[in-house]
Order: sequence, then structure tokens, then C-alpha cells
Amino acid sequence: MVARRTRASVVRGFTPNGIVTLTTDFGTRDAYVGAVKGVLLSAERGLSLHDLAHDVPPQDVAHGARLLRGACPFFPAGTVHLGVVDPGVGSERAAIVVLAGGHAFVGPDNGLFSPVAAALGGVDGCWAIAPRALGARLPATPAPTFHGRDLFAPVAAALASGAIAPTDVGAAHRPIALPAPPPPRRDRAGSLVGRVTHFDRFGNAVTNLAAAEAKRYRPRGIVSLASGEELRVGTTYAEVEPGAALALVGSDGWLEIAVRDGSARERLRLTVGARVEMRREGA
Amino acid sequence: MVARRTRASVVRGFTPNGIVTLTTDFGTRDAYVGAVKGVLLSAERGLSLHDLAHDVPPQDVAHGARLLRGACPFFPAGTVHLGVVDPGVGSERAAIVVLAGGHAFVGPDNGLFSPVAAALGGVDGCWAIAPRALGARLPATPAPTFHGRDLFAPVAAALASGAIAPTDVGAAHRPIALPAPPPPRRDRAGSLVGRVTHFDRFGNAVTNLAAAEAKRYRPRGIVSLASGEELRVGTTYAEVEPGAALALVGSDGWLEIAVRDGSARERLRLTVGARVEMRREGA
Amino acid sequence: MVARRTRASVVRGFTPNGIVTLTTDFGTRDAYVGAVKGVLLSAERGLSLHDLAHDVPPQDVAHGARLLRGACPFFPAGTVHLGVVDPGVGSERAAIVVLAGGHAFVGPDNGLFSPVAAALGGVDGCWAIAPRALGARLPATPAPTFHGRDLFAPVAAALASGAIAPTDVGAAHRPIALPAPPPPRRDRAGSLVGRVTHFDRFGNAVTNLAAAEAKRYRPRGIVSLASGEELRVGTTYAEVEPGAALALVGSDGWLEIAVRDGSARERLRLTVGARVEMRREGA
Repeated sequence: MVARRTRASVVRGFTPNGIVTLTTDFGTRDAYVGAVKGVLLSAERGLSLHDLAHDVPPQDVAHGARLLRGACPFFPAGTVHLGVVDPGVGSERAAIVVLAGGHAFVGPDNGLFSPVAAALGGVDGCWAIAPRALGARLPATPAPTFHGRDLFAPVAAALASGAIAPTDVGAAHRPIALPAPPPPRRDRAGSLVGRVTHFDRFGNAVTNLAAAEAKRYRPRGIVSLASGEELRVGTTYAEVEPGAALALVGSDGWLEIAVRDGSARERLRLTVGARVEMRREGA
Repeated sequence: MVARRTRASVVRGFTPNGIVTLTTDFGTRDAYVGAVKGVLLSAERGLSLHDLAHDVPPQDVAHGARLLRGACPFFPAGTVHLGVVDPGVGSERAAIVVLAGGHAFVGPDNGLFSPVAAALGGVDGCWAIAPRALGARLPATPAPTFHGRDLFAPVAAALASGAIAPTDVGAAHRPIALPAPPPPRRDRAGSLVGRVTHFDRFGNAVTNLAAAEAKRYRPRGIVSLASGEELRVGTTYAEVEPGAALALVGSDGWLEIAVRDGSARERLRLTVGARVEMRREGA
Repeated sequence: MVARRTRASVVRGFTPNGIVTLTTDFGTRDAYVGAVKGVLLSAERGLSLHDLAHDVPPQDVAHGARLLRGACPFFPAGTVHLGVVDPGVGSERAAIVVLAGGHAFVGPDNGLFSPVAAALGGVDGCWAIAPRALGARLPATPAPTFHGRDLFAPVAAALASGAIAPTDVGAAHRPIALPAPPPPRRDRAGSLVGRVTHFDRFGNAVTNLAAAEAKRYRPRGIVSLASGEELRVGTTYAEVEPGAALALVGSDGWLEIAVRDGSARERLRLTVGARVEMRREGA
């Protein structure tokens, strides 16, 4: 995650399109999301605002990072993505603007943007936001506990409207990368041993086994769970009967364990970290 | 639910207004909703996107269908409604575009759109989406488990922007209709016997007794529950004391059981399928 | 909350900017939110709609009022804020338009807008919506249980598009003010005794001790809880170790009790109404 181009080319590489996305752990019961939207629209009424999700589990940076990784690359280049999952608000952690693949990301420097930047080809530039560089764009007395409203939103609006360039927010900065999850390991018998990393809303258990790895076990891969249960590796839920389990490559490119018309989490009693082993049938 | 007009008049009948609504069971913790919005805006940045609801219970097609029925008809003609509650994704179920009342619906062919189409005067046209007809509008390798992102969203964007007409997506198709819920029955004594079909967020118990039926029991209708409790049929919650129960015709046109400033579900211990009997006072 | 200007100056004071915000207790599983958006866009397709929050606890007017107070002032003047937390729908309670600080608020007259209007400098004008004054802008037979869709949304759209002025909706009206929460009291020893008023999503316990009061106890304020636990008064979460508790002035201007990277509600077993005492260190 090191800048790979000169500053000049980076700035040329970001042409704002007026779209701002919002991803937070603010939930949908409090005033936080609304306040951020108000600040954005007060700076520039014509912005096109889009909620990605506000129910990131509180302060779960890894969850927020996965979410941004799964959604932001589908937006057009020139989009500004505001991401706030910020357990370190008010500490010495930097506030940053990251450029990657023609997209700009604004939020805390805690790794939240490292997976999505990697997916977009790597960080093209990163700057630490210096409040004094923003001047009257920021409130006179920003709340030390709500940078989403008082720091990130004004910067995102100014970037999205073209009022400032990413290089205007402060000095170049090297962003923190999230620690990569441990990769799966290959055991002596040639099988691949990974873990459940998280669950989606449907109870599908997503693992750290990547699509490219899973493809090596075609055409007949078998997945074994710690319970001893063995699942075939398929392509889509509808290949098995309702209530039956299978493994498949999910839409984000990771092998997942699913139960048709049901929840793998509940039916197979899986938890985060659960062992998942992949091998060829008969091996 | 059979097309009632010629194809030519149908196409004339849909003039996109640039509005796209989103209704899904994707929840608000994962990347799914954001990815769909990104695809829509990448196809056409000027679209006006509007979340209806993303907390449809997972894979509950009937719930999603009720929701679309209660919301979409209030939008202006020319709106494209993207609806994804899709337990059969990846199976042989068709992906469709449905036209009704000047609105276009895009999603799986599983009955999700049948109630709203009926409410809008019936299906004016339906086409099965043939990926090869869409060409470069679709990703080269669509995920078999995420048609919302890789199939429905590109089609919805192309329809909403006017880039394609509904007839361009594929061959005419006869959509699946949701099985109609069993109608209430009239018993010998002239009372009407129905069931609780679902609850709303407030705990109001909605039944399959339609407004037109309920009106026959005016001016003094009585509703009996399986518990023996008897409720008057009123017009609005405020007619009874806080904490008291009554029956009334809800805003969607169905008789519902409500508790003022409380939850009928909890206070009256009602469940889906619970018996609700309506008669005239004194009968 | 009494009008302080003449009607003429009030009307001059509201110049719609086309933005409409939505705050309700409708939740995100039912058709209610979508129906309201449809009505708004059917009246005026170019409106810029923004969800603030729909998960206000059902019929919790005080919660909705806090939310509006915390979010709406950040929007630009000329915004129309639709607020629907309406346990009295269908009763004799008035439906109102309130003007404050160049913003318009549309919803029930139950105090929902009184805190935000006070924060914006007080009510500049208020009118009771008379359905006959709106004529064909309203549905012929509005549902008595869903004024959000059939009364407030049409009025909000007409105000936001400039089709009508606030004075057009009906006669001047004096709005209900929410009963103010009891203020903290000062005890003999000079300490300030307040209460927990609510919790946010993160489990922070917000009190009725205002920032201005809290500042008097600088530089070394101590907060005692009913449990006997004593907390230092700080500026931001990051001043204490993860898992440790502190008091600080939150982003809305109230003293709150927080636990770094955790929930004060759970860790300190706080409840709404819990006693919070503030004094100087050593006092």
C-alpha cells in the first residue's frame, strides 16, 4: 500500500462525478447519519448521496472494510466514498483521503480502506487531513467525538464538488493496512485448510478460501467441516434440495458454506474461525 | 396475469422517468445493497435511486410482494422497480421484466410482482431476460448467486435511462403468480371468518378481510378473536383508550387488529393464521 | 414556542431548496416508507429525498424529537423536514407546518418539532394543515391511520417544490411543546445532579447535563454514578484504555458516559433515569 505514482498524475486521476457514498457503524436510530448528510448538502446541494450501509457492527473495522471492498468498486470512477468506523476517534490516528482506481475515500486511518484500495489496484495516493488546510470549510469547534460530521463530511463534500483536490487536504501520508487474515494452508495430503471469516445476513459462512484456490479442486471438490460433515462444491444454491448444505464460490470471490433456503450458521452450527477443509473427491 | 395488450402498445406505455426503487432482502449490514447501487450508477449516473426497504425477511417472497404492492403504486408512472427476494437464484427460474400501469418491475420470476401488477390493473407485458440480448451491458462472468448485482441492476439501469425498451430484453414470458391467500369464508350465521396474514412493525395484525367486505358490517361490526375477546370495528386508533384494542381498516385496505399505543401481536398474543371472525353487533 | 415575527416576514424567510428529509418510526420492513417516497416523487419528480432514520422506536416522540434536533440544523436553510412519529394519528391532534431558522417541518402537532425549532432560534411560524385548503393535492379519501402518506407527504412536496407557501396550508396555530426534561439540580455541596436520558447505538449514556454546565467543573471534573463508580471528565474516548469508562461532552452538547471500545450501558449497567453527579475533583 505505497503510492505508486507522482502526485501530479494522481490528481489528474481523480475527476469528481458528484456521487458520495456513506458507510458507517452509526446505525439507523440516532441523529448521526442525518447530521452527516446535512453537512454534505450544506456544502454542496447538488451532491448525489447514497447509503451503502449504516449497520456495520459498532467499531468493527474489519467488517466495514469488507463491506467497502464488496460495494465501492462497482461505482463509477470519480465517486467519493465516506467511510466511518472509527473506534480511535479523538486519538492520534490520522484522518485521511485515499485515492485508488479513480475513487476517493475519506475517513479514519485505521485500515478501513486497505482492502478496497487493494481491489482497485492499490493506493494511488494518500494524504493526512490537516484541519488548518481546510480553513472555513470546517466548523470552528469540531466535536472531538464526531469526526464523521465535523471533519470527514466537509472534506468529502469539497472533494466531490471539485472545490478542492485531494492534494489540498494536507501532507502525503502512508496509510495503515489492515492485518491480512491468515491465509489458508495446504496440508500434506494436498487439501487446503481455511477458516470461516464471517457470516452474511442469510447465514452463509464466508471463508478465507479464494475462488482461484477453490478452482483447483474441480471438477469434484469436497469440503469437510469440523463436525465431520462433508459438502460438495457446487455453483449455486439451487443445485441441492431445500435445507441441504453445499459449498460454492460466493459473489465476492470467496468460498462460502450455504444452506439452500436456510442459514448455514444455524443449521451447521458454524462460528467465526471454524475450520473448513477442501480436498478432491476420493482424495 | 396474462398480457392484455399488443406488444406495441405496451412499449408505448412505458416512458422512463429516471427513478429506480430498490426493494430487497439484503439487509443493511453487508455489501449487497451498495454493490447494486454502484452498478446502477455506473450504467447511468443521473438515475434517481430510492430505497424502499432492504429488511424483507430473508427469502420471504410473500412479504416482499406485499411491500411492493403497498408502495410502488404511489410512484409516478415511468418508474423502474428493482425487487430482489430470490430464493431460487441460480436455478431455472426466469429473470423478468414486468410492465403494469406504466411501471416496470425487474427481478426474479417467483410471484414477487404479481400482487403489485394486479393492483396496477394487471400485467401489460412480461419478458424473460436473455443475457445474450443484453451483451456488453452485463458483466462477462456474472455471479450465479447474485443476479441482483449482475443481471437485474444492469437491466433496470438500461430501462430507466431509456437505453433499451422492455421488449429488448428477451422473449415474451408468462409470469408466475403468487398463490392467492385463501379468501375469508362466510359461515351459516352470516359472519365472515378470516385469518391474520402478517404483522407490521407496530404489532398491528393484518388480516385477509378486505375493506369492501368489512364495510358490509357497518355501522356496528364486531370482531371476535380465537381467545373469545371481542373488539369493535372503528376507524382510527384514537377512538379507544391507550392500551385498548380495536379492529379497523388499515391504510392498505385490509382489516387489521390494533392496540392503541401498543402491539396487538403482544397484547392479544396473536400469531399468523389466527382466526378472526366478523359479525354485526347483536348477531 | 410562540411566533415572533409577522406572517409576511416568515413567508419571505422560507425559500425551498428542493431537499426533503424523512424521519419516521416506520421501520424498514414494511411498505410505509416507500409509499411516502412515492407520493413525494409523484408530486414533484425532481425532489432530493434523504432518509435521516426510520428506526425511531415505535411512537417514541421524545426519541424522534432528539433525532431531529441532532440532525436537521445541519441541513441548508430551505429544507423541508418530514417527521412522522404519530401515536395520535386520527385523533383531534393537529397536523402542522412549522418554520424555524429558514427550515420547514411537516408532521403531527405533538411536540416532535419543538426541540429542533428551539435549537434553530425558535418557531418563526406555525400553521395547522386544513385538508380543504389543499384540494386536489390530497387523495380523495385519505386513510385515517396513515397521515404520513396521505397528508404530510403531499404538503411536504408542495412546500419543497414551491407550489404552495407555508401560509397556504391553513390557519396560524400555536404548536405543542414537548415537556422539557427536568433540569439537573445543584446540591448543597456544589455538585450537579442529573440523569441519564437515553442511550445511543454505541451504548453511550447521554445525560441532561449540558456542556455549558459541565465546563464549570473544569479542569478536573469527576462524575459519580449511583453504583459508587467515579469517572474522570475527559474530551474524547481515546484518553482512557480500551474497556475503561469516562465522562465527556458528546457531539450533541450533552455530558455522556462512555466506555472506550465498549458499551457504557452494558458495562456500567446504566438505565434511563440513572443518577449522575458531577463535582470538582477533591470537592
